[in-house]
Amino acid sequence: MSLIVQKYGGSSVANAEGIKRVAKRIVQTRKAGNDVVVVVSAMGDTTDELLDLAESVSPLPAGRELDMLLTAGERISMALLAMAIKGLGVDARSYTGSQAGMITDAKHGSARIVDVTPGRVREALDIGAVAIVAGFQGFNRGTGDITTLGRGGSDTTAVALAAALGADVCEIYTDVDGIFTADPRVVPSARKIDRITSEEMLELAAAGAKVLYIRAVEYARRHGVTLHVRSSFNNNEGTLVINPQDGETMEQPIIAGIAADLSEAKITVVGVPDIPGKAAQIFTIVASTDANIDMIVQNVSSAATGLADISFTLPKLEGAKVLHVLESRKDDVGFDSLQYDDQIGKLALVGAGMRTNAGVSAKLFTALFDAGINIEMISTSEIRISVVTRADTINEAVRVVHSAFDLDTEDVALVHGGTGR
Amino acid sequence: MSLIVQKYGGSSVANAEGIKRVAKRIVQTRKAGNDVVVVVSAMGDTTDELLDLAESVSPLPAGRELDMLLTAGERISMALLAMAIKGLGVDARSYTGSQAGMITDAKHGSARIVDVTPGRVREALDIGAVAIVAGFQGFNRGTGDITTLGRGGSDTTAVALAAALGADVCEIYTDVDGIFTADPRVVPSARKIDRITSEEMLELAAAGAKVLYIRAVEYARRHGVTLHVRSSFNNNEGTLVINPQDGETMEQPIIAGIAADLSEAKITVVGVPDIPGKAAQIFTIVASTDANIDMIVQNVSSAATGLADISFTLPKLEGAKVLHVLESRKDDVGFDSLQYDDQIGKLALVGAGMRTNAGVSAKLFTALFDAGINIEMISTSEIRISVVTRADTINEAVRVVHSAFDLDTEDVALVHGGTGR
Repeated sequence: MSLIVQKYGGSSVANAEGIKRVAKRIVQTRKAGNDVVVVVSAMGDTTDELLDLAESVSPLPAGRELDMLLTAGERISMALLAMAIKGLGVDARSYTGSQAGMITDAKHGSARIVDVTPGRVREALDIGAVAIVAGFQGFNRGTGDITTLGRGGSDTTAVALAAALGADVCEIYTDVDGIFTADPRVVPSARKIDRITSEEMLELAAAGAKVLYIRAVEYARRHGVTLHVRSSFNNNEGTLVINPQDGETMEQPIIAGIAADLSEAKITVVGVPDIPGKAAQIFTIVASTDANIDMIVQNVSSAATGLADISFTLPKLEGAKVLHVLESRKDDVGFDSLQYDDQIGKLALVGAGMRTNAGVSAKLFTALFDAGINIEMISTSEIRISVVTRADTINEAVRVVHSAFDLDTEDVALVHGGTGR
Repeated sequence: MSLIVQKYGGSSVANAEGIKRVAKRIVQTRKAGNDVVVVVSAMGDTTDELLDLAESVSPLPAGRELDMLLTAGERISMALLAMAIKGLGVDARSYTGSQAGMITDAKHGSARIVDVTPGRVREALDIGAVAIVAGFQGFNRGTGDITTLGRGGSDTTAVALAAALGADVCEIYTDVDGIFTADPRVVPSARKIDRITSEEMLELAAAGAKVLYIRAVEYARRHGVTLHVRSSFNNNEGTLVINPQDGETMEQPIIAGIAADLSEAKITVVGVPDIPGKAAQIFTIVASTDANIDMIVQNVSSAATGLADISFTLPKLEGAKVLHVLESRKDDVGFDSLQYDDQIGKLALVGAGMRTNAGVSAKLFTALFDAGINIEMISTSEIRISVVTRADTINEAVRVVHSAFDLDTEDVALVHGGTGR
């Protein structure tokens, strides 16, 4: 008998029909002899509707009250799911984040889990019931207030519960069949990945792969939780995200997958005096905005002028704010001008195997060169190579790189999921 | 400085506009120097929508999960109301029933309050904030589960908080101007009652007056809480429901008001052997269905046959169930047949003054006789006389009795409230 944590997203429980379908699946898992803990998100668009309501009564709603409001969403879906399961003859109990012991700090809207005390969840399992837990929400002991975990919070709830309960696996149900070697909408020949390390998954998620949130993967990695990303619309095996023990190596291909990201922009600080401390000064200013800086490139300074250019990428949404604060400090820093470019695309090639394989970069650059795609920035980590190209060449770039690394499959039937399957 | 508990029903907070209007009113009360605790119901039709959802996933939803589901309704309205108040520059905090210390027994769907520990509400008041409390909901200590108080639960929450906090008044906001001497839709000349005793209010509520729930009035009476029933759409004074101290007498008219009720039906058990214990046997059978029996009349038995008829009224909704169980025990009891009549109306005349005034019954019966209205059943309490008539004569009955007791006002402009005023 296994202990399985299952997480269902909002699209899986968007309406009564979805809830009944998910309930059936949970009952199957329970009847197969497993202990089952389910983490559920709010139904479909509930969260957006609640946000609209909040905006209509107050332009800048208080964080405490916004969290109180939004947590109503999972309360609805979890109670309905528990009812549906009981309707199928299996005992089920729903628990709010606070009832399930999801203790967080007090940062409303993006709280971090500080402790998990799932005593009531365990009691439910002990009497043979399925425990349904509200995703995305927690409770701060100091203030006694309800908190939310921010984007991807339900994944994090599921992983944290799986860790605290010592679950055998944490299944993340979604509307696609798993993690793919590239986005199947861009690369129809993309393959579903059967197994991937959490290290690779982290890099893919950081590089723009949407299926899993970085934070949940980090938590799983830190606590040794095995994730299974799979579709709630069929019974296919999905993608296992595993944590090889220290020293243990996994038989695996050089490249796990390719991620692309069109959500970033590039800021170039032109004409920075090439004297020590200037880069530190610039990024201290940028950091004061809490912007998420990704790639940073500094070109060689011209001996004639003694000036260098510094470029970095960041989410487009944060562009205006960072430009504004840099412009206001122009004289302190002593640069010439700022350039802003939101027509960039970022491609990341990820694979633990590249640690021990030379020539990966060369092969990547060659593939892009052969396709006539210009590389504007490059950055690398131990298991990832990222390049920036023009936005309108990014899909072609993903396809040629996918082919160059022999990731294509002939089996295009298995590709991208969707409703009704 | 006073401590005021205000309760707003679902129709007052049906949409963003309503929430903002209510927020403004609360801010006015706070800025006038009062401590304010607000109890709020779910927005408009939210509860019915959630019930529909429950029904669509499970024909017979579990009580625990239904309570979990329904309590999402107040969570939404209270958070939005707190946001709206903060948006007007006054601090506000929302609290669930459990955070506000509404401790109940474990009876899901119709829990009773067993203790009120509003420590967090007091803390909010101490820092100058308005405390917004979810109506209708509580928490059971033994099970750790969320409960709901059943119909009229938000009124009860407000009264219970007012009692526990020692509030100066508990204001019940509604869409009418207060309690009227009769339903203004039936009697256009009905007067708003300025003051009424809780004893009279209880009788009116029990007899079908819809504005206040019996349970809340009972709680207020037991704990000496003064209620002020008033409109959320204007600033008019409404109706004060007061608790005269023992021995204290209130200068008041003989008759407080008239209530009418078309929701009941009459069952007659025909041909019951007139031997001791038969009535007890019949009502033991009826009691086993948990039906709410109201008036009971036994006619004189016929000396020739030794048989009597027993009639009683009960809510139409419970008619089928009671008929069914009585029919199944026909042979045990030994009656001839059952008659069911759902075309009855009930009129109740209520007034503490009738204790010391003879002739009230006579005046009532004369007024009905003069109007050609037949009386089918009569029952009396110390401060109430109820009669049953044909359903289609009940409105006329209310009007003639209202006139006979000089309750009519000339001022018909003040009459029945509604949205938009």
